[in-house]
Amino acid sequence: MRGVIMHTPGDVRVEDRPTPTIIDPTDAIIRIAATCICGSDLWPYRGVDHPDHMPMGHEYVGVVTEIGADVETLQVGDFVVGSFFASDNTCEICQAGYQSRCVHATGLDGTQAEYARIPFADGTLVSTPGRPDPDLIPSLLAASDVLGTGWFAAVAAEVGQGKTVAVVGDGAVGLLGILAAKELGAERIIAMSRHADRQALAREFGATDIVEERGDEGVTRIKELTNGLGAHSVIEAVGTQESMMQAIRATRAGGHVGYVGVSHDVALPGEELFFSGVHLHGGPAPVRRFLPQLIQLIWDRKIDPGKVFDLTLPLEQAAEGYRAMDQRRATKVLLTF
Amino acid sequence: MRGVIMHTPGDVRVEDRPTPTIIDPTDAIIRIAATCICGSDLWPYRGVDHPDHMPMGHEYVGVVTEIGADVETLQVGDFVVGSFFASDNTCEICQAGYQSRCVHATGLDGTQAEYARIPFADGTLVSTPGRPDPDLIPSLLAASDVLGTGWFAAVAAEVGQGKTVAVVGDGAVGLLGILAAKELGAERIIAMSRHADRQALAREFGATDIVEERGDEGVTRIKELTNGLGAHSVIEAVGTQESMMQAIRATRAGGHVGYVGVSHDVALPGEELFFSGVHLHGGPAPVRRFLPQLIQLIWDRKIDPGKVFDLTLPLEQAAEGYRAMDQRRATKVLLTF
Repeated sequence: MRGVIMHTPGDVRVEDRPTPTIIDPTDAIIRIAATCICGSDLWPYRGVDHPDHMPMGHEYVGVVTEIGADVETLQVGDFVVGSFFASDNTCEICQAGYQSRCVHATGLDGTQAEYARIPFADGTLVSTPGRPDPDLIPSLLAASDVLGTGWFAAVAAEVGQGKTVAVVGDGAVGLLGILAAKELGAERIIAMSRHADRQALAREFGATDIVEERGDEGVTRIKELTNGLGAHSVIEAVGTQESMMQAIRATRAGGHVGYVGVSHDVALPGEELFFSGVHLHGGPAPVRRFLPQLIQLIWDRKIDPGKVFDLTLPLEQAAEGYRAMDQRRATKVLLTF
Repeated sequence: MRGVIMHTPGDVRVEDRPTPTIIDPTDAIIRIAATCICGSDLWPYRGVDHPDHMPMGHEYVGVVTEIGADVETLQVGDFVVGSFFASDNTCEICQAGYQSRCVHATGLDGTQAEYARIPFADGTLVSTPGRPDPDLIPSLLAASDVLGTGWFAAVAAEVGQGKTVAVVGDGAVGLLGILAAKELGAERIIAMSRHADRQALAREFGATDIVEERGDEGVTRIKELTNGLGAHSVIEAVGTQESMMQAIRATRAGGHVGYVGVSHDVALPGEELFFSGVHLHGGPAPVRRFLPQLIQLIWDRKIDPGKVFDLTLPLEQAAEGYRAMDQRRATKVLLTF
């Protein structure tokens, strides 16, 4: 089968890879219907992480083509959406809603490919109510990671009725954090963005205010908009020192920061954090927790998170997709077959 | 009046200080009935902070001797317990339960003294149901800070029915975190302590297990006691890099760390925190939020937090009290008049 391999930073190729087969009886094999490039794929692309012939991709929707002997909830032919982490969904951690930290949690072996083996298929995949209309596929694909992650960030930030929410980061996750905040009842949603096209999508998803300033200036603007107090809930969707401090400082005492940007070279100063009085929660999103609800919202056409895809390319042109995201010509690239 | 002044690290003296008077119409003056030395007073004593003729003390119970023109809820003669932070208890932050970060929050000008001026008296002080029996005074005094702080830590760590709680730190706050965890319904309470006398009090307050190991060894023991997962809730009551990392690492994914040790030279590594998946919340405890409930529990003799005081001295011997706590000969020193 064909699949994307990152040989070294910046060197992305589509190559022949072995078609995966069932290894464990809890596995399923799926034929990928659509996949995409993640903001986190840019970390190795830019050399912050160190890829070495790494199969890429962890977002996917597709059709089950084969199931292991122990798979109980899925049938060959099911259309499925899965989380970017495989989880058994039965352990104590999963049952508490933290499937991304399942005691059996495992990453996926590259879903930017024609087929993928999904471990713990019962615990990882969720079937859609039927075969989706083609126009629903981008949104279902978004549920696999960026929507699930933005949703988790909003939940982690305790977004709710009547609250003011600020969102740090205008990538796909930040934008879908806005969508989630809107769905979860936020009264006011402040998007921090300086890109006109992303501001437009932010407003479409529910942002009521835009702040273009960053860092401490951005924090000052958030305070001005919140009676000097800061936001009740802040979604952090970048993962740098600056963005984390911006999120913490933009949150009122007793408020909540939900952070989902993968932290790189971040050290949080203990004393400032202590006196901030904020709640901090985040990490790799337990997307599986939210998948049934998100699939239903998409199926019922109540949300349209697929709008974050602003470039669609065939898998064979994956390298161009990486370039477009790296150069910020695209927010999120969908790969088709 | 007589009051404690720290001239330089380690140099504590009881001296004549001006007796406080009403400055703002929202002030009250109280005659201190009992005060004490806080673990946080040891930071300047040990030179970690830099005192310069600093009036000491922020814990107190006493009798109102004078009120400003705008004080509405208190009468001269009331016996009161107050928080270590003055707060208006009416602003949006106070109403959300974060009185220690009130928009008017202010520290106190040294309650290790015969009298103290309490700003925002209506928002800071809570009257007891009547004049307390003398044996209740240590417990009411504990409510002013160490009990309120331990209680907040347990609430911040989301302690509740059926949960396993670990407590890092066996000082007065950690010990009262144990008492709070017990009251809040924890099923299992693991005290991390290597001092026999503190272990005994920990068990009296509700600890079911003792772990003597520290750092990563301590974490390993907690995991062994929790099916490899870590505790649901961890109370951090020290404030060092080691204790914070011990707390984070001893918490299961999705669990909660409540930290109330004043962070000194702490930098939390972002990537480890991210992948830990824990909730982190803490800071200066909003004691005022809990005071009515805590006073009632003490008044009804349902809890006896005053047991943390293991040395009582007259105010004039405050310097010996500091020495005893610094040398760990005493857990918590009560000062009388």
